[in-house]
Order: sequence, then structure tokens, then C-alpha cells
Amino acid sequence: MPFIQNTWYAAAWSTEITRSLLARTIANENIVFYRTEAGSVVGLTDRCPHRFVPLHLGRLKGDSVECGYHGLCFDQTGACTLNPHGDGQIPRAAKVKSYKIAEKHGVVWLWLGEASKADESSIADFSVLTNPKFRTVCSYLHVQANYQLISDNLLDLSHGQYVHPMFKNAEGPPRFEAEKDPHSNEVWAKFSRPNQLPNKYFQMLGYPKDQRGDHRNFMRWNPPSLLLLDVGMTGVNRPVEEGLSIPTSHLLTPETETTSHYFWAMSRDFRQDEDDLSQELLRVGVAVFDDEDKPVIEAQQRAVNTSELMSLKPVLLHTDGPAVRARRIVEAQLQAEQR
Amino acid sequence: MPFIQNTWYAAAWSTEITRSLLARTIANENIVFYRTEAGSVVGLTDRCPHRFVPLHLGRLKGDSVECGYHGLCFDQTGACTLNPHGDGQIPRAAKVKSYKIAEKHGVVWLWLGEASKADESSIADFSVLTNPKFRTVCSYLHVQANYQLISDNLLDLSHGQYVHPMFKNAEGPPRFEAEKDPHSNEVWAKFSRPNQLPNKYFQMLGYPKDQRGDHRNFMRWNPPSLLLLDVGMTGVNRPVEEGLSIPTSHLLTPETETTSHYFWAMSRDFRQDEDDLSQELLRVGVAVFDDEDKPVIEAQQRAVNTSELMSLKPVLLHTDGPAVRARRIVEAQLQAEQR
Amino acid sequence: MPFIQNTWYAAAWSTEITRSLLARTIANENIVFYRTEAGSVVGLTDRCPHRFVPLHLGRLKGDSVECGYHGLCFDQTGACTLNPHGDGQIPRAAKVKSYKIAEKHGVVWLWLGEASKADESSIADFSVLTNPKFRTVCSYLHVQANYQLISDNLLDLSHGQYVHPMFKNAEGPPRFEAEKDPHSNEVWAKFSRPNQLPNKYFQMLGYPKDQRGDHRNFMRWNPPSLLLLDVGMTGVNRPVEEGLSIPTSHLLTPETETTSHYFWAMSRDFRQDEDDLSQELLRVGVAVFDDEDKPVIEAQQRAVNTSELMSLKPVLLHTDGPAVRARRIVEAQLQAEQR
Repeated sequence: MPFIQNTWYAAAWSTEITRSLLARTIANENIVFYRTEAGSVVGLTDRCPHRFVPLHLGRLKGDSVECGYHGLCFDQTGACTLNPHGDGQIPRAAKVKSYKIAEKHGVVWLWLGEASKADESSIADFSVLTNPKFRTVCSYLHVQANYQLISDNLLDLSHGQYVHPMFKNAEGPPRFEAEKDPHSNEVWAKFSRPNQLPNKYFQMLGYPKDQRGDHRNFMRWNPPSLLLLDVGMTGVNRPVEEGLSIPTSHLLTPETETTSHYFWAMSRDFRQDEDDLSQELLRVGVAVFDDEDKPVIEAQQRAVNTSELMSLKPVLLHTDGPAVRARRIVEAQLQAEQR
Repeated sequence: MPFIQNTWYAAAWSTEITRSLLARTIANENIVFYRTEAGSVVGLTDRCPHRFVPLHLGRLKGDSVECGYHGLCFDQTGACTLNPHGDGQIPRAAKVKSYKIAEKHGVVWLWLGEASKADESSIADFSVLTNPKFRTVCSYLHVQANYQLISDNLLDLSHGQYVHPMFKNAEGPPRFEAEKDPHSNEVWAKFSRPNQLPNKYFQMLGYPKDQRGDHRNFMRWNPPSLLLLDVGMTGVNRPVEEGLSIPTSHLLTPETETTSHYFWAMSRDFRQDEDDLSQELLRVGVAVFDDEDKPVIEAQQRAVNTSELMSLKPVLLHTDGPAVRARRIVEAQLQAEQR
Repeated sequence: MPFIQNTWYAAAWSTEITRSLLARTIANENIVFYRTEAGSVVGLTDRCPHRFVPLHLGRLKGDSVECGYHGLCFDQTGACTLNPHGDGQIPRAAKVKSYKIAEKHGVVWLWLGEASKADESSIADFSVLTNPKFRTVCSYLHVQANYQLISDNLLDLSHGQYVHPMFKNAEGPPRFEAEKDPHSNEVWAKFSRPNQLPNKYFQMLGYPKDQRGDHRNFMRWNPPSLLLLDVGMTGVNRPVEEGLSIPTSHLLTPETETTSHYFWAMSRDFRQDEDDLSQELLRVGVAVFDDEDKPVIEAQQRAVNTSELMSLKPVLLHTDGPAVRARRIVEAQLQAEQR
């Protein structure tokens, strides 16, 4: 089960990368990240070519990393710039890969494949994360499951009715509308609850408890597994702009075949200056994603074991359409890369 | 190393199965157990055919299980009875296996193979467990070893002399009599200590410390690995009925190739109304089976690793006869099933 | 990745082997060690041939081990001397391997291969360990890495500059002199720091803080992985005898392909009667070997995973010469044994 190479993976929140060395495995590649003195983000193979000790056990010296074992230094291009031993000659093979990196929307993006193909403008639009109209809270979750199982979870939000008490509605699971005219490289999974009372989540956000309204959950998926949920509630048949909107980002990045990085953020266009609400949203996100979704998805991973989900011939429901389409887009790109 | 399919496995004590969902793996099959409102026991494949999440993470609704992920419901026959999404149509493949179950002698018995071959009258006789003449205490032990290693242990009770201080006798290991006329589908392993002083166990049970007697340990084995020990002590050459009798049941069930469920019970025909003695027997059982046998058997499993014991050509002693016979009966049935 | 058979492995410090049973795995072989009543060391296969239970779970009876499961007894030659069951006949196959053992320099040495080839005089000279001119402290460390990665570490002491604050010198890594005339079965890795101020280690040992001197680190390696470091400091151009000498032994023994036993000792020819200094040296050894080297070497093992280091084509520096030579000597002996 290989991973797409020529795509932008979310590697970290921008705030995570500092003047300390951060080790993170992405799509089976061990990478050490840091920020140069000028502020740009560097990602190098986290393995010294001399004795294979991870570079993150070493230390940052200016814009270079000094290996913690025998002191070879590598700069931000991955070139070895210092051999402190003997005559100091630097062996030709003494270098590490420097990954193509972009920083956009408050996210550090990583390109595994050919640098010449990396185009920052192809990064999916998560400008909401840094849009000053919104107040955003961010978090990170490590999941013991393949990233596509998490993507499946997010593309079928009917699970909210069963997995998340806070998202449950008295009138049952939401209505799902299949995409009429799907885009070739983007998937939408639109769930809605027209003319219903608010669930506990929207009550918490301030929607009046006894006032019916239109609740929407419109999930957008872009490869490899970047999801943006347009979630909000407004009066029955009223324009979206009148209601509460709390777009939620879910950036999924494979660590290995069976483990994933899950970056999530909630951005709100109301009560932006209430720090208490920010804290409450973080608390809710942890309760929902960490404590409710994660155990289900990890149990699913254990049941599927090392098999690819679709190879086990799951029963398909109407609501699985978007997840199946997303998997097909990934599969097509994988096959294109292998040709 | 496959497992016999057409046989009755002890799946649980009856008291373990309630109106809550209980997950248990038996012979590599993940099964969720529960009791219907009318009181019968149900065992279903513990995996929703939609997204493969274990059903035990869901909830019981009447006599059906609702999957905790997207709300599909399965009744006690394994049929999907509710799809809460879209037009509610139920896909043809939306069903799980419902296992053939029997409840007898206070034990829930599971049949993995063809239901048409399941005959409750073929369940080995453990009526002692519910016989009102006896007071019975039950327990459960999880062992990190193949079930046949535990069966070997119980069919060679000479180990009591070395493993269990409470069962040790001053005069050395017991006398073993090989079966003269073995039954084709049952094994007896008879150990006896005629005319000896009681060991600590019988002293604890009330046999006079300085009075010699005949101590018997007659183990009966039935496939796949159900053992009943007729253990007792009576005066020298006196009839069994005069002495103490404490038949002990050992129901072994494979969980995986290298892990097992071990259900044990002690039934006594004396001092039946003494709750303190019941507590003491549970304490002794844990000391003996959990704390003394289990470490030895698990060390043996680690030494044998994934090999089948007999393939390693163990040195055989006279006392290994019953264990070898039991393994041959299992092997013969396995081969018959594979034909 | 097999291990050399016809060589002496350090199995234990002499003080570790007593009248209790000690289990230790060496080069994938499980061995139980004990001392006879007369005081000689015995090493037997730690597995009863009857039911494969480790013998170390049994007990010592005189000079024999009684299996803890069914009471078979094995003497120091590995012969079964007692079958307590039935007619007591001892099956021909009831025996275990008794390993060839030597005890020398306070170390128990184990020979895995043909006993007839075992020659105690071929044990590398570690007489410093028991030389009364020196006071010696000993310790033991378990490392989750292949023994050759530890040997590599010790043969390139330039790592001290980066891994060990206590061994760091202001003037940078030490000077390395390649061997001019290498011995066919011994490797020397000589590092020196002529005319420098003492590092923290020599300050702690009592070398005057502001007095320059010649600091030497001359490592001797003998197969399979026995290292003796001649380490000391003396005045500039003064004879070695005038200065401090603290030869340090590093006896590395493979447990499995990816785990090792690491026996180390520090012997000093000064302040021999100061118990506080002995305690301080043990504390320093733990700080340096356990807390600083071990994490680096274990991270290296995880990076190398199950590959042999050289097969990954590491970049080689001048200072790697001795480690590469030592690996070649091991490889040559392995190949000779396989012929």
C-alpha cells in the first residue's frame, strides 16, 4: 500500500516548527523539521548517512543540523558542510534529502515527490484558517489507523447520530444528497437537517434551543485527504450569512500504513473574542475526535488488519458514495505514479 | 493450526451473558454475545459488514444489535433489520453469522461449524456443575498459551508434586495407571495415592491431618478439551461415598493459536452451606491455576513458540500417554473435517 | 545473521553465578547457569526435553537441576539422572546440552561451538580486572541493539565529543591515528589529545584543572567483541606511569540479532581505597553508557531495523577504519565456520 508522492501533505501546524528539531514520520519517511534563523521551514531526512542515527537527536547550529553522534553538519539543502574529523574532507555521499516545503494557511506542507512538480498554487484552499474574519483553534491527534479510514469517517457524517451524543438529532440521521455533477478531483459530501431543532453542539454555540432552523454539514475533500467542513445553522429558509458558521478543517496525513496524523481546526465567524469559547471548542473537539471517533476508527483498523478496506468487499450504503469516490481518486493517482 | 469446527466449545459461563454485549474471540472468530429479552443466548459475528467496526461497540435495542458507527441493526438471526439512511433499503449482503448456541450445565456452548450437525446431546456431561447435591464455585482465566498445552498439563497430574506446594505429598508423585481399554473418543488419566497422609489441600478441606487414606485424581477428557477431575479422599480401602469429593471442571477453549480461555469450577458434596469455604476454594484455585500453572504453561508456549508441540519431538514419559491420546483424537477429527 | 560459534563469549560476571539458577540468552541460545557445590560454573540448555519448560523455573538439588514441571533431574553434564515417574526408566533422548565454560579474570566465558576446539588460553587478556594493582568496579547493561553497533561505538571514540559532555574537550574531537601494521585478529583504535587541558572526567579523577597534559584513549578489540580501553592522562610528554590510568573493559555479547549484553568495568591504579570514588565511577558509567550511549545506539538500531549496517552502504569517515576492520574479522570467521 504505497502513498501518493506528488501531492502536498500537511506536515505540521506552522506554530509547531520552531528553532528546535521536530521529528515526524510522513508516509513512512522519517523527517526532521526546523526553522532557519530567517524563519523558513526546513525538512531533512532524519537519518545521518554516516551511522544512520536520527538527526533530531543532534542540535541546531545556525541553519544547520549537527549530528549528535559524530558531529557531521548538514545545511538546509541537505549538503554536509562540516566533517570535524581527520583532514575534514567531506565524502561525496555525505548528504541527506531536503524536502520541498511550503507554508500556507498556517500549515506546513510537504511534497514527497519530484520537487520540479511541486506547485504551491495547487494546495487546497484552507484560507479560512488564517482569515481574520474567523477565530481559529487548532489541535493534533495521533490515530492508530490508516488515513483513509479517517477520511471515510469524515465523508459519511451520518455517523454523528451514533458516535457523537453532541451531534445527535432527535429526528434521526441527516439527509444526504449525492453530488449531481462531481468534479474530477474534489469530492463533496453534503448532509443537511432542514427545519430541525439545534443539537447540543449548536445549543452550546448559542443557537436558541427551541428555535427550528436549517443545519448544514457540507464536507469538501481534496487529495490526498484534506477535508473542510462547511458547518452551520441558520433560520429555516434564511440565508447562510444570517446564521452561525463554524468551518472545520481536517487535515489527514499518513504516518505509516496503519497510523496517521490528524490535524484539526475549528474556525468561527461569531463570538471571536471570547477566549472561553475557544477553550470550550478545544474541549469539545477532543471529546468528539479523540474520545469518540478515534476508538471506533482504531477498532475498525484492527478488524481490517493489514487488508485494504475495499478488498474486503464491504456492504455499501447510499451514504458511502463520497468515500468511495475519494478512494478512487487516490487509487487513480497512485496508479498514474506507478506507470 | 486450524481448530475443530464441528464440536461444542465452552464460550462462557451462563452468568456472564446478560443484556450487555460481550465480545469474545473463539478459535480466531470474533463473536459478540448477548441475551434476548426472552432469555436465550445469541452469538453473532462481531463485525458489521458495512465498515467492519465491531458490533460490541454498539448497543442492544430489544433483541437486536445496533452498530455503533452508522446504526445498521442486526437481529438474533444475523439479518439486518434496519438501515436508517436514504431510502432504507437493506443491501442483500448486509447480514452477519448467527452461531449455533446451546446452554447446558450452566455453560454457554458454541458450535462453529455446520448448524445442522450440532446435537446438544453430544455435549460432554458436566451436570455436576448444576447438580443441587453440590455447591459449585466458578472462575475464569486467560492464558497466553495454546489450549492443548493446558490440556496436557491437566492430563498429567504428576506435575502437582512439583508445581503446587498445596498438592505435594511427602511420598512423592502419585501412581499412574494407564487405561486398559480406552474409549475411542474419551480419555481417562487416573492418578492415585493409596494409603497416604492428606496433602495440604485435603487438610484444608477437613480431612484429618494424621489419618491415612486413599486419594484419587481421575481426570476425564472429552474433545475438544473439556476436562472433569474426579478428585477425592476417603479412608484406606473405604468406599468413595464415605470420603470427601470435590469434582473439578476445566473447560478449555482456544481463543487464538497461542491464547486460551480457561473456565474452571470446583463442586463439593460437603460443607455446601459454608460461604467461607467457597471463598477459600476460589482463593486456592487462583493461587494454583493462575499463579502456579499459568506461568509454567506460558513459559512453555514461549519456548515452543509457533511450533506444534509434537513436531518438536518431546521426550515422552509413561505419564504422557493420556495427553498424547487426546492430541491424536483432536488431530483425527481435524483431518476428518479437512477431507 | 548468524553468530560465531567457536569463540569465547562473556556470559556473566563471576559474581553473578551463584547457587541460584540464572537464565540468560546468548546468541539466541537459552542457557541456565549455576554454580556447583564445589564452585565450578555450569551452563545447560534452559529447556527440559520433556515438555520444553525452561529449567530455570525449577530448582537446584545438589549439583543437578530439577525441572519445575514434572521433576526430571539433569546433572552438570546435561544427563538426566532421575525420572521420578512409573518405573523410573530414563529415556535415551532425555538430556540437555552442557556448554563448555571457562572462568577467568572474574568473567564467566561461554563457548557455543565444538568443545574440543575450546582453548582457555585464547581468551583475550582482561587480567586487569583481577590485577590487585587496580581497584575495579563492574556493571551490566542491557541494550536493544546488535552487539556490533556497540562495538562500532567503542571503536570510534570521537563520538565522546558529541555524545558525552563529560568527555568533551574544548579543542574539539581527538586526533585519530590509523594502525600502521595491523594484527590479523586484533584491532587498535588510538585516539589522543596531546597537550590539552583535562576534560570533566579527568578533573573528577583528580587531574589538576589548569594543567595541560597528554590524554590517550587507546581501544583494543578482540573477537567476537571484547574491548579494553587504555585510557589515561599524564603530563605533556611525560611517561604514562606518572599519570592517571583507568583501563576500562567493555565485553559485548549478543543476546539476539537486535539485543545485547554489555558488561563494563573501570579499573584504576590510583586512590584504590576510596570507596566514594568507586561509587562515583559507577555513577559516571551509568550516566555515560546507559543514559547517553544507549539511546543513540538503540535509535541507530531502529533506523537500521533488521538490515546489516554495512549492507546499507553507510558513508565512511577516516575514524571508521577500526570498526570496519573489526566487522571484517567477524565476517571472515563466520564465513570460515559456514564452510
